[in-house]
Amino acid sequence: MSQSSLFSSSTSARGPADHDIRDQIVAAANQHFSQYGYGKTTVSELARAIGFSKAYIYKFFDSKQAIGEAICANCLAQIVAAVDQAINVANLSPTERFRRLVKTLISTGVDLFFNDRKLYDIAAFAASESWPVSQAYEAQIKRFVLQIVREGREAGEFERKTPLDETVDAIHLALRPFVNPLQLQYNLDFVDEAPTLTTNLILRSLMP
Amino acid sequence: MSQSSLFSSSTSARGPADHDIRDQIVAAANQHFSQYGYGKTTVSELARAIGFSKAYIYKFFDSKQAIGEAICANCLAQIVAAVDQAINVANLSPTERFRRLVKTLISTGVDLFFNDRKLYDIAAFAASESWPVSQAYEAQIKRFVLQIVREGREAGEFERKTPLDETVDAIHLALRPFVNPLQLQYNLDFVDEAPTLTTNLILRSLMP
Repeated sequence: MSQSSLFSSSTSARGPADHDIRDQIVAAANQHFSQYGYGKTTVSELARAIGFSKAYIYKFFDSKQAIGEAICANCLAQIVAAVDQAINVANLSPTERFRRLVKTLISTGVDLFFNDRKLYDIAAFAASESWPVSQAYEAQIKRFVLQIVREGREAGEFERKTPLDETVDAIHLALRPFVNPLQLQYNLDFVDEAPTLTTNLILRSLMP
Repeated sequence: MSQSSLFSSSTSARGPADHDIRDQIVAAANQHFSQYGYGKTTVSELARAIGFSKAYIYKFFDSKQAIGEAICANCLAQIVAAVDQAINVANLSPTERFRRLVKTLISTGVDLFFNDRKLYDIAAFAASESWPVSQAYEAQIKRFVLQIVREGREAGEFERKTPLDETVDAIHLALRPFVNPLQLQYNLDFVDEAPTLTTNLILRSLMP
């Protein structure tokens, strides 16, 4: 798995035409998994269902996991894009940016994973087995946190006594129940109140 | 399930002698489940394995879940007892009490659930299905938090602007990844750093 592009879906892209076929397989697999689940489906069953030969699928993906990673990467990239759009708006204070980060993370995560319960399977696999896409996603969320905390410190809005990396790690830990798809499912009872409660607690901890 | 006694293991206790038999069944079931797992074992298999008839077991427990609840209640009561012992020591500052709360919660939880992986099954069931024992456990943890925050406010160590229940709910949310057995398994990578990181973040949020 290439680490250079964050959400590159696989190493086995072989040019534009192949890329289209890969996308077709991913889209078809996405549809199939959403209906029948990821865990129980074999590559043979998937091939039969989407009308490709198993050998043909293996030309483009090394394993079922590689297909799962591609689907998962699309999913997580959507969350990252939504967060990026929500926080990178001109003239927002770091406090407001942080509020939007948490709110968007939770609402997009809930939408994506729980409007399509079967796909959750894949994200859960990804998180539980620490797939590269899942790790890259968590690293990206941490970069968002770092960016906002750094800005808040520079603007004098946040305290500067705590080492920056300690602050970022601690905030990331507090957000993990909602950032990590595997944990989100156990926190659904809290997704209404959590954005406010957790954000306010973290913002109080950041006060100068 | 009686709500009056927090960790009462079932409604079907029928006096001291019966209580002993119940305890025997729970102990034998505990042993059996630790070896073979909770999810996959039926009451018939359990009965055969521990040398009681299925009908006899049903005299004491309504269901497999009732046995699971009793085992789980013992487990969680141990965590609560350990926390109680760690924090209810004379002359501790509320800050120190809070540090001990988090540290003990995490270390006892990790010990109990992960030195005996098969038993984790039961705790996971309990948490995922919101069994009364699991709810009672979370409520007890929240009472510990409330006690410490209230003391800290009275001592002038913690801020008083935020409504008390908001502070307690927010802290409980931040601790859930380590309090809730279902989530703890996904946070094992963080159990070394979390006590310090999470505690410090929460304590910063509590500063007057």
